Amino acid sequence: MSDVARIAGVSVSTVSRALSGASGVSAATRAEIKRIAGELVYTISPDASRLATGQTRRVAVVVRDTETWFYYAILGAIEPVLRSAGYDVLFYRVSSEAERDAFFDELPARRNVDAVILVAVPLSNEQVERLGDMAVPIVIAGSWIDHYTSIHIDETRAARQAMNHLIQLGHRRIARIGITDPEGDPWQPDAGRDAGYRAALEASGIDFDPQLNVRMEFSLDGGARAMDQLLSLDEPPTAVFAFSDEVAIGAMRSLRRVGLHVPGDVSIVGVDDHPMAELSDLTTVRQPVREMGTHAARLVIDTLGGNTVEGNVELSTQLVVRGSTASPRGLQWRS
Amino acid sequence: MSDVARIAGVSVSTVSRALSGASGVSAATRAEIKRIAGELVYTISPDASRLATGQTRRVAVVVRDTETWFYYAILGAIEPVLRSAGYDVLFYRVSSEAERDAFFDELPARRNVDAVILVAVPLSNEQVERLGDMAVPIVIAGSWIDHYTSIHIDETRAARQAMNHLIQLGHRRIARIGITDPEGDPWQPDAGRDAGYRAALEASGIDFDPQLNVRMEFSLDGGARAMDQLLSLDEPPTAVFAFSDEVAIGAMRSLRRVGLHVPGDVSIVGVDDHPMAELSDLTTVRQPVREMGTHAARLVIDTLGGNTVEGNVELSTQLVVRGSTASPRGLQWRS
Repeated sequence: MSDVARIAGVSVSTVSRALSGASGVSAATRAEIKRIAGELVYTISPDASRLATGQTRRVAVVVRDTETWFYYAILGAIEPVLRSAGYDVLFYRVSSEAERDAFFDELPARRNVDAVILVAVPLSNEQVERLGDMAVPIVIAGSWIDHYTSIHIDETRAARQAMNHLIQLGHRRIARIGITDPEGDPWQPDAGRDAGYRAALEASGIDFDPQLNVRMEFSLDGGARAMDQLLSLDEPPTAVFAFSDEVAIGAMRSLRRVGLHVPGDVSIVGVDDHPMAELSDLTTVRQPVREMGTHAARLVIDTLGGNTVEGNVELSTQLVVRGSTASPRGLQWRS
Repeated sequence: MSDVARIAGVSVSTVSRALSGASGVSAATRAEIKRIAGELVYTISPDASRLATGQTRRVAVVVRDTETWFYYAILGAIEPVLRSAGYDVLFYRVSSEAERDAFFDELPARRNVDAVILVAVPLSNEQVERLGDMAVPIVIAGSWIDHYTSIHIDETRAARQAMNHLIQLGHRRIARIGITDPEGDPWQPDAGRDAGYRAALEASGIDFDPQLNVRMEFSLDGGARAMDQLLSLDEPPTAVFAFSDEVAIGAMRSLRRVGLHVPGDVSIVGVDDHPMAELSDLTTVRQPVREMGTHAARLVIDTLGGNTVEGNVELSTQLVVRGSTASPRGLQWRS
């Protein structure tokens, strides 16, 4: 407005009155001021107008990484829903505990978002306690935390779907390849699938063997290294329940390298229904990741709109049987 | 400050003087005001302080999608560099021409970022012309536009590296699977690789056959459908240069489904060196996507810091030979 006032040769308060339609400004002056303001592309700064309402119209989406399908698929599903509701997406990638700490340290003081979507990020117990200090609504996607709005699958049930399939095929020596945070912070989905794995074994009277329950970093390579470790056992497994399709595909690489066949020698089940799963003919437990992202975004929008939202949303999973699972046949290392 | 003044029972100007260290406030009052302000978690609103400097400390990163490796890998590389320099990342996904138009319409008026990184987004000629209206610095990553800071590979040279390998193996009937924007907007990387494909054929005296130069959507399925189309020709190719590793892996699926072998029946080369490429034993032209993201982020930081930056950065690519390419052998459809 000071630029318009200078060019029009009037006071700033006259410009303000003219643009706001207040009285005390002649029609000619008002027209002239509007013309000059139009040429200067008079735009209300959104940051300024938001300061008045206390809203930023921004939502933070926090992922652990961008190279794992679950994270980039859900990010892609969240963005258009928030965008169409007029929210910008602030993107945070917090791979290490230090990055997560920095996020929790800085967020409240920065006051740069109206809400946070935390996507299946491993969190220490301390970090979970600090969620309450964020001073903005938080939605957990792909995981769950008591007292927070969460949207996720039943991880235990998903694991049992995979395990029941392998057990029904006749497998008894079934390994699990789980994932672990390099710094050992709890990662809810892995804990849930571990529980489902153990429950399925127990329900079928199969003893739990800790050697068959391995955890590696969440990647193709992690799956490959875990499979190498399983193959070095005195009695390797005849079937593997992998944390994700990417982990499963990594495990399949290890098997192929040593000349073992899937499913002839080892059956493999993943979780996700990654686009590559069909290509790899991989049996998997499908989880609705796009729906999870869309729904998480809507939970944020509803919460910010002052509506009551469901505190805990559970989406269902389905076993998709393809060619990577079959009955165990006599393997050289089996008695 | 008005809250502190009310609680302390003093005027706002006294609070202001006390907190800013100005004179005219007794030591006791100053201590009391500081105590109350401390309890109220007196924080300077970053949006307010940024309004004074005209900076938002935010950078927009604009990608076409999040499901293609190139886009999510570069996003993951850009974020930590900007974050560590104190910039937040605003994430935009613009898959359609309408979404790109909306982005260009809204960005100048919203004034919500200090700079934009456009990641290999297809752009109409009109949209390219409108880049000048953005009123903030723009860095192009994975593509290039005259007069804008761009960081990219030499797409033509990358194509020639792939093509020279196939030609040296003895292939003469070489197809290209390119990508196309559903709305037909120019996509620089595809145009560059198309030029390299044609130049390599011409340099070896091989006639260009438009039937062998197909374009599909940029995905696994697109690669699969393009390969189906190539297999339906009277004289199918003995080798395929695919736009990316994902497109190549899709093409390999189509071949496997009809019982054809790679490289026995058809050789395939991709571009990227996707994590899945090694797994699929895919020959590829490696492009340094993480380095591209890191460097693009630094170009933005340097530009915003008032430093002169190189206008056009070209990163090199390397052929990685794996098991998906070999000399052509007598195929049933060859004379």
